[in-house]
Amino acid sequence: MPEMKSHTEYITLNTRNRYEMVHLTPQVEAIVKRSGIVDGLCFVSPMHITAAIYVNDTEDGLITDIATWLEKLAPAWAGYKHHQTGEDNADAHLKALLLHHETTLPVTSGRLDLGTWQRIFYAEFDGQRPKRIIVKVLGLTS
Amino acid sequence: MPEMKSHTEYITLNTRNRYEMVHLTPQVEAIVKRSGIVDGLCFVSPMHITAAIYVNDTEDGLITDIATWLEKLAPAWAGYKHHQTGEDNADAHLKALLLHHETTLPVTSGRLDLGTWQRIFYAEFDGQRPKRIIVKVLGLTS
Amino acid sequence: MPEMKSHTEYITLNTRNRYEMVHLTPQVEAIVKRSGIVDGLCFVSPMHITAAIYVNDTEDGLITDIATWLEKLAPAWAGYKHHQTGEDNADAHLKALLLHHETTLPVTSGRLDLGTWQRIFYAEFDGQRPKRIIVKVLGLTS
Repeated sequence: MPEMKSHTEYITLNTRNRYEMVHLTPQVEAIVKRSGIVDGLCFVSPMHITAAIYVNDTEDGLITDIATWLEKLAPAWAGYKHHQTGEDNADAHLKALLLHHETTLPVTSGRLDLGTWQRIFYAEFDGQRPKRIIVKVLGLTS
Repeated sequence: MPEMKSHTEYITLNTRNRYEMVHLTPQVEAIVKRSGIVDGLCFVSPMHITAAIYVNDTEDGLITDIATWLEKLAPAWAGYKHHQTGEDNADAHLKALLLHHETTLPVTSGRLDLGTWQRIFYAEFDGQRPKRIIVKVLGLTS
Repeated sequence: MPEMKSHTEYITLNTRNRYEMVHLTPQVEAIVKRSGIVDGLCFVSPMHITAAIYVNDTEDGLITDIATWLEKLAPAWAGYKHHQTGEDNADAHLKALLLHHETTLPVTSGRLDLGTWQRIFYAEFDGQRPKRIIVKVLGLTS
């Protein structure tokens, strides 16, 4: 009889750059495999408020287009009120809100059930320090 | 004793227009009913990176407002770097990121537990070809 | 043996202002505790199409920055087509789409498994009337 299970792992990242897009699909796929869960949902989220998770293409030009677009819609700017506290990263919070801080992904037949071009990215907007990502898989073991 | 279950179906769409908003609530409701799941979560997502899912109103004027607003914030434009690969749809990726590629919905008493005006839409930004949507319901059968 | 469970509660809010950010973390944490669920996912969503849920900082300056930024990207404006129906809140729909109408949060060891600065906010864009939020926790009781 299928058993219900929840499996949680944490990934720690430390990006070289302040802004950086990190391809996470292989790491998340490995966690799904280790979970032993065959059918269910896989939740992925940074545990921080200046980073996001998004699902899209690995094509380098598009990744640059996304970064340019985020800078246009949520620009770095000295005048944010948040900076009166001594912070300098209000734009990182806004960029993270724009992309959404979490995603859920389907798991079918023991694998991430993604389309041909769907890839998971961690979007860092205030890096150069250790950041944690939680991955939780909830579902049936058989 | 309530049994834990996961139920998955795939919807295939082929929109007449390149950009199109497709009302999906009846199809998703039918899948929830077929699942036999009485309480849990319903995950809905395109398996593509140029389409999104959103929840909002069926009013035609508002649907036009949403499309106009997306074009303003993530315009079609020849100059995207992604287009150097021969693609012409970078704006479709950005529009999809803005609306988010997936949604989760609550299931209570065997039905989608939505508010009076909440309706599910598939937002196509690069259509006129077959596209797949995955719907996965996870929860208890009684 | 761990039991699978789903627990649902509804929160009703009536904000004093038309636009208002309401900190919800304590209420959601109390629901998770009452659920008896030790490991799983917690879904939070308004049952309305003019409000959103987001996860970010409680710092007042940043909350103001977020509101200013939303007004810039999705401004109140008389000319929306939706207003031809007699409505005056099209910007509320767009602001809600920008922040996304729902979030999922991880539950580990009987508590919301959030990072140090992650807090849950209800973002109201058409308040001064009763609005409902659904919180559903799905997971294992031990």
